[in-house]
Amino acid sequence: MTHHQAEDESRFERGQKALSRIDGKGGEKVVASLADIAPDFARYLIEFPFGDIYCRPGLDLRSREIATIAALTALGNAAPQLKVHVEAGLNVGLTRTEIVEVIMQMAVYAGFPAALNGLFAAKEVFALHEEGSGTEDIARS
Amino acid sequence: MTHHQAEDESRFERGQKALSRIDGKGGEKVVASLADIAPDFARYLIEFPFGDIYCRPGLDLRSREIATIAALTALGNAAPQLKVHVEAGLNVGLTRTEIVEVIMQMAVYAGFPAALNGLFAAKEVFALHEEGSGTEDIARS
Amino acid sequence: MTHHQAEDESRFERGQKALSRIDGKGGEKVVASLADIAPDFARYLIEFPFGDIYCRPGLDLRSREIATIAALTALGNAAPQLKVHVEAGLNVGLTRTEIVEVIMQMAVYAGFPAALNGLFAAKEVFALHEEGSGTEDIARS
Amino acid sequence: MTHHQAEDESRFERGQKALSRIDGKGGEKVVASLADIAPDFARYLIEFPFGDIYCRPGLDLRSREIATIAALTALGNAAPQLKVHVEAGLNVGLTRTEIVEVIMQMAVYAGFPAALNGLFAAKEVFALHEEGSGTEDIARS
Amino acid sequence: MTHHQAEDESRFERGQKALSRIDGKGGEKVVASLADIAPDFARYLIEFPFGDIYCRPGLDLRSREIATIAALTALGNAAPQLKVHVEAGLNVGLTRTEIVEVIMQMAVYAGFPAALNGLFAAKEVFALHEEGSGTEDIARS
Amino acid sequence: MTHHQAEDESRFERGQKALSRIDGKGGEKVVASLADIAPDFARYLIEFPFGDIYCRPGLDLRSREIATIAALTALGNAAPQLKVHVEAGLNVGLTRTEIVEVIMQMAVYAGFPAALNGLFAAKEVFALHEEGSGTEDIARS
Repeated sequence: MTHHQAEDESRFERGQKALSRIDGKGGEKVVASLADIAPDFARYLIEFPFGDIYCRPGLDLRSREIATIAALTALGNAAPQLKVHVEAGLNVGLTRTEIVEVIMQMAVYAGFPAALNGLFAAKEVFALHEEGSGTEDIARS
Repeated sequence: MTHHQAEDESRFERGQKALSRIDGKGGEKVVASLADIAPDFARYLIEFPFGDIYCRPGLDLRSREIATIAALTALGNAAPQLKVHVEAGLNVGLTRTEIVEVIMQMAVYAGFPAALNGLFAAKEVFALHEEGSGTEDIARS
Repeated sequence: MTHHQAEDESRFERGQKALSRIDGKGGEKVVASLADIAPDFARYLIEFPFGDIYCRPGLDLRSREIATIAALTALGNAAPQLKVHVEAGLNVGLTRTEIVEVIMQMAVYAGFPAALNGLFAAKEVFALHEEGSGTEDIARS
Repeated sequence: MTHHQAEDESRFERGQKALSRIDGKGGEKVVASLADIAPDFARYLIEFPFGDIYCRPGLDLRSREIATIAALTALGNAAPQLKVHVEAGLNVGLTRTEIVEVIMQMAVYAGFPAALNGLFAAKEVFALHEEGSGTEDIARS
Repeated sequence: MTHHQAEDESRFERGQKALSRIDGKGGEKVVASLADIAPDFARYLIEFPFGDIYCRPGLDLRSREIATIAALTALGNAAPQLKVHVEAGLNVGLTRTEIVEVIMQMAVYAGFPAALNGLFAAKEVFALHEEGSGTEDIARS
Repeated sequence: MTHHQAEDESRFERGQKALSRIDGKGGEKVVASLADIAPDFARYLIEFPFGDIYCRPGLDLRSREIATIAALTALGNAAPQLKVHVEAGLNVGLTRTEIVEVIMQMAVYAGFPAALNGLFAAKEVFALHEEGSGTEDIARS
């Protein structure tokens, strides 16, 4: 197999592995929901954010999720994605405390409403976790 | 000195120390620029973001600057503050590589224009660093 | 009837005709929902966006709906209006494919969350269409 | 009791009184909802927005609520907080007419969707008022 | 002259008078700058925001400028217009203190960067005033 | 050459051709400005927006530029990119009239300030065109 061929297959495959590890079931649901309306977009979602960006070595996954949770809280108009990433944050080893700290800090940069709505989104995700597996503050590899 | 008295003085003092350590000269300039128009606002800036939030123990300063750089890049309308925080990121031990990774990742969450403008802001700050002290990728305590 | 008199009546009348043709039932519902709280606003909505802007000859209605669908997707905080305009897009002759392409493209300018939420809004509108009249990809005059 | 000690206690106490007067039950609900996820954030919410800002003498409460209702309508991504502040506006003596005028004006600065969504939020709050106490257009001290 | 004819002429005339009174020279400059690229847009600007909205009786001009200054500060991406409206605020009788209070309050709803950039914009306008007429805190009719 | 290998090379090559055709010199400048700070990001910019999205057959280039100009005007925080795309719009066959119509329409969806700032950006680009080649309203293939 040539270098480019390996390269090309692995963007999608690399992306699928990263999506599965980071976003877990939340990510799978998003991809499935696109099947009937924009299947190509599901492919782009796997290839670019996950295959290209999340797999880059220069920044660890915990820091990446801190960045994403911060941005989505500040933007204030992407609650579904913020919930997926609060879950993702727990999956890559952030504690609930750390996630809550990131969101609270957004009161400084995007205002109290953005931080409040971010906290309410995180609250929903944590509640589902409690019903589920009870694996709150355990760092995972 | 009573507990509350100590508490009250230390919000401002704690904030000043944090501002100085994290934002360095950039932060001092901002405070000075408010003296004639809104001196109370300079006090709030020191007390709440720095005295209250940045001093909280639940999240380290490097992660806090990752969160802030991400949010300001995504918001796209706060270039002066983003530059202060790129500088702050270097001050608390982020490498240029890490800062650039955070900003690039914002292409996924806020689009390519936001990430491009963030990169151009970082580029200006790095250039000033080169003219100045040449202390790019050294982690500082 | 004098020129100005004709001019003045026709902003509202022109607007009503345009609103009816472009937004269809979605537009009527919005106007009705304003009756008890801000009836003047319903009048402004008909007169300025529809009477003044949408009736201008320099850009065709299909292009106008492309522009609006793009903007509302990018802004990410106007889902009700985006749904009205996805419907409007179909009314003025855009195909579902074209609408989906516009929304996907917004991943580049406003990020993947904005595009995803736009696709989910379009999906809801298309589903209602299927239950209704089955007139998906037919260009209308 | 020394000056600073009085100062420190009164930020929180001052804030609680202001929150109670201005936001009424809406504000209490927000504070309560934070108890399990971020109790410190509830304290910041009381101390900074209400203890520091809303208690400042340079601008009266009616003008402060006009500013907040305008900003939240323009931002378009904080509907829960906008509803709290429409209620707060009534509490500090704004009439429904005045609140509706502020929101409509946002069509000029943030577009018709932002103004529409603001009007729908206000409509919900006014409806609850009617079911409740019938104290619409009475200015209160 | 018929009622509609008077109505139609007076939207533009009413708007011109309001624009002149409220925005002063800032408004005239904006209209002039549109002459070569979009003269119709200058007409819409005079007719809708000023002829329709600002002339409405339900909210006084000082409150209208408080709302606009708040919204533009919160949005953070319209510095030229914010400066025009800080000037307009002074023209309709707001004091510098009141304008600064509105902008500072936006730290709560849109974050400290938005408020800081708003204060810097106001600072520029106040400086021009000092060079000009020295009429800072005098309420005008 | 295998299918995947051809596929992989052509994302970048396809993207380069599209970038050159659509954005012209503006696009080349952006890529060059990234060389020292984030060369990988220049590659992503060529591959995803241009190689993947702009090359898709479901929507013509003129419609794509209408969508982008609308979105960037509405967002209001990406003036450099808006100017590149006003130029791009002319490159793919939009007339100045059409571009101005798209931007004016954004007054409805994002407010008058966003539309004004968009018009001023377009004005700068048109002025450079006049100094250059004098090819305003000619549709190009």
